[in-house]
Amino acid sequence: MIMFGAIEAGGTKMVLAVGDNSANIIKTTEVETRTPDETIPDIIKFFSEFDIEGIGIGAFGPICLDRSSVNYGRIGKTPKLDWVDFSWIEAFDNPDYPVVIDTDVNAACIGEVTYGKGRGLKNVIYITVGTGIGVGVYSEGNLLHGMQHPEAGHILLPVNNDDGFEGICPYHKNCFEGLASGPAIQAHYGKKAQLLLDEDEVWQKEADYIGKAIMQYICCYSPEKIILGGGVMHVEKLFPMIREKTLSYMNGYIDTKQMQDMDNYITPAGLKGEQGIKGALYLASRG
Amino acid sequence: MIMFGAIEAGGTKMVLAVGDNSANIIKTTEVETRTPDETIPDIIKFFSEFDIEGIGIGAFGPICLDRSSVNYGRIGKTPKLDWVDFSWIEAFDNPDYPVVIDTDVNAACIGEVTYGKGRGLKNVIYITVGTGIGVGVYSEGNLLHGMQHPEAGHILLPVNNDDGFEGICPYHKNCFEGLASGPAIQAHYGKKAQLLLDEDEVWQKEADYIGKAIMQYICCYSPEKIILGGGVMHVEKLFPMIREKTLSYMNGYIDTKQMQDMDNYITPAGLKGEQGIKGALYLASRG
Repeated sequence: MIMFGAIEAGGTKMVLAVGDNSANIIKTTEVETRTPDETIPDIIKFFSEFDIEGIGIGAFGPICLDRSSVNYGRIGKTPKLDWVDFSWIEAFDNPDYPVVIDTDVNAACIGEVTYGKGRGLKNVIYITVGTGIGVGVYSEGNLLHGMQHPEAGHILLPVNNDDGFEGICPYHKNCFEGLASGPAIQAHYGKKAQLLLDEDEVWQKEADYIGKAIMQYICCYSPEKIILGGGVMHVEKLFPMIREKTLSYMNGYIDTKQMQDMDNYITPAGLKGEQGIKGALYLASRG
Repeated sequence: MIMFGAIEAGGTKMVLAVGDNSANIIKTTEVETRTPDETIPDIIKFFSEFDIEGIGIGAFGPICLDRSSVNYGRIGKTPKLDWVDFSWIEAFDNPDYPVVIDTDVNAACIGEVTYGKGRGLKNVIYITVGTGIGVGVYSEGNLLHGMQHPEAGHILLPVNNDDGFEGICPYHKNCFEGLASGPAIQAHYGKKAQLLLDEDEVWQKEADYIGKAIMQYICCYSPEKIILGGGVMHVEKLFPMIREKTLSYMNGYIDTKQMQDMDNYITPAGLKGEQGIKGALYLASRG
C-alpha cells in the first residue's frame, strides 16, 4: 500500500496522520505546538515508522505558498514568534518525497471537496470559526491563493453594538475575527462560549456577524456551497439563524437556485473535524 | 491580417471595435443601448463589414459564464428588463467563429493584465467606480468566476455618516456601490460629482469608502496590484487619499513588499478607458 503523511499544523497542537490515497487513516496522533526545535523532532519520529511517499501540510500562516519561490513553506510575521521564518521544507531536510503545503483552511476546504460535503462541486468556500476565523476558497476546481493567500477572516463588518463591544482584533477591532471568534465571544460577554449556550441573544448576535460575513463572501467568490467548521460551529442552533441572516443581508440581490435550498447551501463540515487532516493527506497524495 | 470583433456592453451604450490580436483597433464605434431588437442589428451591421475570426464581449450581468452550460451568454434578472433572458450566443445566430463572453469588469481586468498596468503579473484586481461598482479578479493567471461571477461591488461597508446618508443600493443600502458610486455621490450631496470637485470633504469620504473596500479585497484576493477605473476615478486627487486610507484600515496586518510601494500598488488604469474593449478583443483572440 502506498502511504502518505499529513500534518494539520495549528498554533496549540499539531495533528499528525499516516494514511492512504483515499484518506483512510492508518495511524494518527497529536503533539503540542512548542518551539520548532522541540516540535519537529516529534513529528519526524512519528513519520519515521512508516515508508511514506509524501507529506501534505495544512499550516497556520502567514506562509509562502508560491511553489516557484525559494521561500515556499516559510512562515512570515506571526505572533507565534518562535515560528517566524521557520521553513517546513527545510524542517524535513530534503526528503526523497514531495512536501506539499497549503493553509490550514485550504487543506480543510479541499478535504471537504474531496471527501465531504463539497464532493462533485467546483466552487466551495470553507469557513472556520474557532480560536481564529479563516476562509479556504476552492474556485473553478482550484484552491485560491492569489499572491500569498487570502486572509478573509479579517474583512470588516458593519456593526452597531449598543453594549459598546468593538471587537478584539489587535489590527482592526471590528473585523469578522475580531467580533465573532471564540476569544471575541469570551471578551464580549465575559464568559467562555461554552458557558453561554443558553443565552439566545449571544447566538443571535453571533449568527448576525457570520451571516453578514457570508453575504460578503458570496459577493466575492460566488460559491456553490458554504461549509462551516471550527469550535464555535459546534453550536448547532447557529445554522438556521445564520441561513436566515445571510438571506436577510443579501436581500434577494443574488438569488441562485443553490440559495433557494439554504439547508444544503450553508452546511456543517461533513468530515466532523477531520477535514483538515484528510485534506492534508489529499494534498500529499496529489503531490 | 487576422481580425477580431469586440463589444463592451454597458447599460447605456455599447462600444464596438474591430482589431488584431495585439489590440490594435482598426475601427471603433458606439451604439446606444436600447432593446435587444433595436441594438443587435446595429452591432451585426458594424461587424458585417469585416472578416472577423471571433467576437469577445465584456457584458453587464448577471450573466451565465459557464461555457459548458446551454445558457452560456444568457443574461439573468436585471433591472434592464428588455435584456432579461437575452442570449449573446443566440444573438449572433451560430456564426462560424467563437463568441467569448465575460463580465465587463473581467474584460477590463484582462485588458489591463495583457496590455496595461497589470502586465507580467498573475494576481490583479480591477475595480470600476462609476455608475455602478464592480470588481474583476485575475488570480494565479486566471479570471475568477466562481459558480456565476463575483458581485464584489456589493460588499457591505461599516460607515458612520453623521449626516444620515445611508446609501442608495435598493438591495442593501450601505454596500460599497450604494455608498460610493457616481449616483450615490449625487444622492449623498444633492449635486453631480462633477460639481463637487472642490469640496474636499466629499472626496475624503469617497476615498474612505474605497479604502475600506480595498482593504477587504486585499484580505479576500491577495492581489499583487489593484487597478482602478470608471468615471469617478477620473478625480485624480482620490488616489493618494485612497492609498492612505487603505493602509490605515489594514493597519499593518498584511504588509507585503508590494504594499510598501503604494503608488504602484494602487494605480489608475493604464489603458485610459480602453481597458474594457481591449480586454474584449483579447478574449476574442484567445478564443
